[in-house]
Amino acid sequence: MENEEFMKWPDGYQCGVMVTFDFDAESMWFSEDATAMRKPSVLSQGGYGPRRGIHKALEILRDFEVPASFYVPGWTAEHHPGAIELVLKDGHEVGHHGHMHAWIDPEDPAGEIEEMDRGLEALKNSVGVVPKGYRAPAATSSEKTLALVQDRGFLYNSGFLDDVYPYRHVLPDGSNGPIELPFHWNLDDSAITYFSFDLQPTIMPNDQILDVWTTEFDVLREWGGLVNITLHPQLIGRPSRTLLMRRFLEHMRSFDDVWFATGVQVAEAYQTFEAST
Amino acid sequence: MENEEFMKWPDGYQCGVMVTFDFDAESMWFSEDATAMRKPSVLSQGGYGPRRGIHKALEILRDFEVPASFYVPGWTAEHHPGAIELVLKDGHEVGHHGHMHAWIDPEDPAGEIEEMDRGLEALKNSVGVVPKGYRAPAATSSEKTLALVQDRGFLYNSGFLDDVYPYRHVLPDGSNGPIELPFHWNLDDSAITYFSFDLQPTIMPNDQILDVWTTEFDVLREWGGLVNITLHPQLIGRPSRTLLMRRFLEHMRSFDDVWFATGVQVAEAYQTFEAST
Amino acid sequence: MENEEFMKWPDGYQCGVMVTFDFDAESMWFSEDATAMRKPSVLSQGGYGPRRGIHKALEILRDFEVPASFYVPGWTAEHHPGAIELVLKDGHEVGHHGHMHAWIDPEDPAGEIEEMDRGLEALKNSVGVVPKGYRAPAATSSEKTLALVQDRGFLYNSGFLDDVYPYRHVLPDGSNGPIELPFHWNLDDSAITYFSFDLQPTIMPNDQILDVWTTEFDVLREWGGLVNITLHPQLIGRPSRTLLMRRFLEHMRSFDDVWFATGVQVAEAYQTFEAST
Amino acid sequence: MENEEFMKWPDGYQCGVMVTFDFDAESMWFSEDATAMRKPSVLSQGGYGPRRGIHKALEILRDFEVPASFYVPGWTAEHHPGAIELVLKDGHEVGHHGHMHAWIDPEDPAGEIEEMDRGLEALKNSVGVVPKGYRAPAATSSEKTLALVQDRGFLYNSGFLDDVYPYRHVLPDGSNGPIELPFHWNLDDSAITYFSFDLQPTIMPNDQILDVWTTEFDVLREWGGLVNITLHPQLIGRPSRTLLMRRFLEHMRSFDDVWFATGVQVAEAYQTFEAST
Repeated sequence: MENEEFMKWPDGYQCGVMVTFDFDAESMWFSEDATAMRKPSVLSQGGYGPRRGIHKALEILRDFEVPASFYVPGWTAEHHPGAIELVLKDGHEVGHHGHMHAWIDPEDPAGEIEEMDRGLEALKNSVGVVPKGYRAPAATSSEKTLALVQDRGFLYNSGFLDDVYPYRHVLPDGSNGPIELPFHWNLDDSAITYFSFDLQPTIMPNDQILDVWTTEFDVLREWGGLVNITLHPQLIGRPSRTLLMRRFLEHMRSFDDVWFATGVQVAEAYQTFEAST
Repeated sequence: MENEEFMKWPDGYQCGVMVTFDFDAESMWFSEDATAMRKPSVLSQGGYGPRRGIHKALEILRDFEVPASFYVPGWTAEHHPGAIELVLKDGHEVGHHGHMHAWIDPEDPAGEIEEMDRGLEALKNSVGVVPKGYRAPAATSSEKTLALVQDRGFLYNSGFLDDVYPYRHVLPDGSNGPIELPFHWNLDDSAITYFSFDLQPTIMPNDQILDVWTTEFDVLREWGGLVNITLHPQLIGRPSRTLLMRRFLEHMRSFDDVWFATGVQVAEAYQTFEAST
Repeated sequence: MENEEFMKWPDGYQCGVMVTFDFDAESMWFSEDATAMRKPSVLSQGGYGPRRGIHKALEILRDFEVPASFYVPGWTAEHHPGAIELVLKDGHEVGHHGHMHAWIDPEDPAGEIEEMDRGLEALKNSVGVVPKGYRAPAATSSEKTLALVQDRGFLYNSGFLDDVYPYRHVLPDGSNGPIELPFHWNLDDSAITYFSFDLQPTIMPNDQILDVWTTEFDVLREWGGLVNITLHPQLIGRPSRTLLMRRFLEHMRSFDDVWFATGVQVAEAYQTFEAST
Repeated sequence: MENEEFMKWPDGYQCGVMVTFDFDAESMWFSEDATAMRKPSVLSQGGYGPRRGIHKALEILRDFEVPASFYVPGWTAEHHPGAIELVLKDGHEVGHHGHMHAWIDPEDPAGEIEEMDRGLEALKNSVGVVPKGYRAPAATSSEKTLALVQDRGFLYNSGFLDDVYPYRHVLPDGSNGPIELPFHWNLDDSAITYFSFDLQPTIMPNDQILDVWTTEFDVLREWGGLVNITLHPQLIGRPSRTLLMRRFLEHMRSFDDVWFATGVQVAEAYQTFEAST
């Protein structure tokens, strides 16, 4: 495996960095617990995203001149189109992230298709986007997910955790599936800064999180891997965490052999690499 | 959004700090688990609040000359009136925090109203208080909460997490609701010092918590936001945690552009700001 | 409350330290999950206590010349009498800790009495001890616990968390109950070094735990309180944690105004104080 | 107990170190939650092991010239024979780790036997291994496990936590069972670097983990114990965690009185010790 060829980065870059945001807003909360729909204060945790967090995140991206990819549930686009338009105005990518942020359930194939298609429709109708990238809510999937992603014409998927290099999925029938841009919880802000008594009852200081993230980055850079960072405006946009985001970008920006790119750019670079081998 | 006008602080202050206490006492435990009512040792965790923690907290507030807001369930006022009188004697605000600290359940609108009105009655009868501020137990809510808070004549609500600036709620019918003084778990001692094997099985050293809190404060101050700190006499009043409270207040007191105020004072400042725009 | 008289320590000592051990052995595991009785490897976590941990703990107590109190379930005494005899040989106190370490259930008053009496019998028959101190398993209790403890002739109870000074319980009928020697999770090794994926899926470095413990001790010493430390041979006796115990004792031993005493000695000192007021 | 003779290490070594890997791959995930079988992205967390983690782990073992023991479920051997062959090519030990990584259930003795025998068959057929060591999935067991391990001719078992020295099990009927090579969570990467919102919702920086591990090692070395380290290619093989593994091995390699050995070598050394006493 290690002897196999894995992706080389364009222009001699040593590694690629994707700064991505899952822009769930309220859907993070009602997809985990349907009763939250009737609990405005619970939803307000997600509301922080479009109301305040997104502005802070976009400001930081501008300060560091970093292109980013935002995966947006259809529901979010319908309810907060203004926020998505700010994202687009800054030239960032907008990808698909389900419709209601519903977790994919292998027992409910019709539900999976509905989420996919309603999300596509909402992105088109609300903000005029035809997404090229798909990231499933909460890293969920079924046996049918990849074929569906391929069938709907996506260039890439970003939801698997089995590698640190982009690769192309092979579908059950042996045909080509989408390109995979793998991620891992070690670079996901929800795994380390989300708070709830039910799911994650701890709050960690920035220093410790920065240590986790920069170490992961440093080794990935050495390996020539894909640094796929998953953030959420409602989490990384909280006051202290904006400082965390700044310090992490500062660290990564201090190397001049690091390529910052959107998911689409990384996937296209993979296509080029693929064509050359 | 970022271009919109958000509240300016009085007298040229850079930011506002509300030091608040949810004075649940035993109700923290029986509201989470009804069987605790019959478990005196479980309840005794809450009993530490009125028995010892409150005295330590009040002493620290005096030492740092900080006004505070105490949100008190009716049950606590009825069972520990002496402790609430000490709070009032020191000039602190007393607000509403339910009656039995019962979590608001959208499925039980009658229960929500009962908690509200029994709490009002108990505060009146036990300690002679007509509260101007409302904070729901455990940050719970229903679709009817804000209208109820408005209907009962409260000046402000403090239980949403969608902003770092005070704002005015708009009710479903389009009319004005109460002023919101938003908070977040990042500045809540229960999110970081509460211990139970079921809900939060970790104990963090003061240094790490202080790092979380001072970083949150530092950025909020830079943003000109509301620093809404939520403490509990039974948690912050434990020996080591009193030191944490002292060190945090020391840090905040080292800036001379920070306004320490009660919830009522912040809400009134918001009214003034509102009238001027 | 703060103006009330609380216990003064004998001989001008500034504070009292009780080093205590809950010597659950296997019963820690089968009382939490009855199926563990049939899972030898799960039980073996508790078996470490009598097999290895107790020897390490006793050695450290000898090195620091610290008297300790061991709360022993009847089951442990029956199955590991040799280990309890080593405890007694070193002059430490042996107290009551239930029989099967069964958690007290207010719905099962007969079960509570049975645990109490079988535990008394087992301690008597297996190691010849008539205990003067009672500590309920896992800090559980019912409305009847204190009266039962009083009825069985115990001098003291150690299972409430509502104060940092010893005090005397008043029973529901107004009569005197046992003396309480309160504790808190902040000084309990199970709250911070126990590992299980179900209950406590983290492992903290010694430095952080030592910080929690020494800060708690430092402030309790300043307050003149009772430093009631709860350890478990199977937890504190693990290799790295013996170093933690040594470093903590070293810290406390560096003050010459600290009184190290067993539960019985503290309770008797409280009786003397009580008689003098 | 402490006066009893415990194992001395060969050639005057002060302690023994077993670096072991539970090579679960996807089976870690579907054994914990059967629905994961239909969730490719969940499984992909385990897929990282054979795809990438194993290569990193083997490279590090070569760099530090450390022999290791890999406990491999039959399912993993059947689905990733190439990865196991790399392990064997480097001269490491391959042991038994169940077939589907099914947790042993005392209520299902037939299932336990089936897992045992299917695992043996798969190891034989897929990679030609007849294992001498057995480690149960997830440290599970029944009352029948040890007799089964003995009956199937294993030299040793590694799944109990009641000591820090190798010892020989005595079966319920009084006859000799397998040698035990005990382990503990304090030296298990899954207890400290595994992430899931359900089971372990925290991510710790390397420094803290290294502190836990080196302290455990230091004291075990002082005691002359067995340092039985449990790793997983899918966890320790993640970018930042490979650095953790390197730093830990570096620390242990800095002592020249430490014996690095496979499980079989340790068990054989125990046999020699046993014969001499």
